[in-house]
Amino acid sequence: MGSESCSVVFDLDGTLVDSVYQHVLSWQEALEKQGIKLSVWRIHRKIGMSGGLFAQALLRETGTAFDSAAAARLQQSHLEAYRRRLQQVRPLPGAKQLLAYLTKAGLSWAIATSGPRESAGPTLEVLGVSSGVVVVTRDEVTHAKPNPDLFLEAMRRLGATATNTVVVGDSIWDLLASRRAGAIGVGLLSGGYGREELEKAGAYRVYDDPADLLLHLDELGIRISSPS
Amino acid sequence: MGSESCSVVFDLDGTLVDSVYQHVLSWQEALEKQGIKLSVWRIHRKIGMSGGLFAQALLRETGTAFDSAAAARLQQSHLEAYRRRLQQVRPLPGAKQLLAYLTKAGLSWAIATSGPRESAGPTLEVLGVSSGVVVVTRDEVTHAKPNPDLFLEAMRRLGATATNTVVVGDSIWDLLASRRAGAIGVGLLSGGYGREELEKAGAYRVYDDPADLLLHLDELGIRISSPS
Repeated sequence: MGSESCSVVFDLDGTLVDSVYQHVLSWQEALEKQGIKLSVWRIHRKIGMSGGLFAQALLRETGTAFDSAAAARLQQSHLEAYRRRLQQVRPLPGAKQLLAYLTKAGLSWAIATSGPRESAGPTLEVLGVSSGVVVVTRDEVTHAKPNPDLFLEAMRRLGATATNTVVVGDSIWDLLASRRAGAIGVGLLSGGYGREELEKAGAYRVYDDPADLLLHLDELGIRISSPS
Repeated sequence: MGSESCSVVFDLDGTLVDSVYQHVLSWQEALEKQGIKLSVWRIHRKIGMSGGLFAQALLRETGTAFDSAAAARLQQSHLEAYRRRLQQVRPLPGAKQLLAYLTKAGLSWAIATSGPRESAGPTLEVLGVSSGVVVVTRDEVTHAKPNPDLFLEAMRRLGATATNTVVVGDSIWDLLASRRAGAIGVGLLSGGYGREELEKAGAYRVYDDPADLLLHLDELGIRISSPS
């Protein structure tokens, strides 16, 4: 880390909002509508990766190829299925407190998600982020995670450098993308991955959830000069 | 392994049937009805453990104590919520083929689940097991997993010894219970745990799902004398 203060870039689903399992079952429902059967745990491990790579994985695992019209239909069915499950989606413990603490301490932070704006919107509402917050969604970059584009764009908007940025995510796609962006990656168990999966993908530290991270900011080298 | 042929005892949810994520969200719904908020990943990691231990974990993590009436209400709400999600529950890839193969090869096998008969019933229907199959449910033993009772009772009914039994499960509770029963434990990723979590809990091998296990029976020392 350089001498200026740190920035933090957060993933959204499974990192700040407890929405992964609802997304997983919504994808299962959408895939079945197109005649594709895929075990739920395999869908879980693909949440947060780019749609293009997801389609490549589907081709390998199920033999089904997707043209852009089929991909758009799939996206639309998923969105409908997810909206039906939204009432069960909650902010993760400590998420609001962590963001409020960082803001109060004068550290800059942003949210960067592989989801398109349409699907990230309702989830951001659950979290209750104000309009001034930097949020980068799928639509705003060329490639989603595990490419570094989303995190690099978030850093650009924050005026942050990679060496002074901590990326926090719950999936291996977040951690791969953070490595490619040159930032320190931190994993959270709140998306349902195992600790070792996240460590193997490059997590410098793994915490339970945002509440647990808030208790350990010092371990990340995040200096709070005047926390109030 | 002794010189007689092997027996196999399977867990049900996440091991033979793709039902874990539906159970997880059903528990979340049931807990919220009683005013208890628990992150979904924490519920996931408790699926398959005994209800009594689940209640102890809830007391530690949420501060809520359960009397037997509250526990019964919780169980009932979960069952209702799970029934609504049953239409999305499928057998895991290879599950039916694996069981049919073992039967054809003359090996004895059974199913042992921490779920009560009432909740296991619909899941067994999804799998389509015949009435002659040995199935041990929560109601039939003193303690559920990770106590060894369920697996020991299954072995007793099969006339099998622990040293000739392979236990197959997707959760760490299955693996702890298999160790306490003195049997070899094998893990499956199809319940959504990470590989290393299962290995650390004592899995001798970890496979993706029943289809992958069927391809590797030789690695478990399961001798098929006359497979047809």
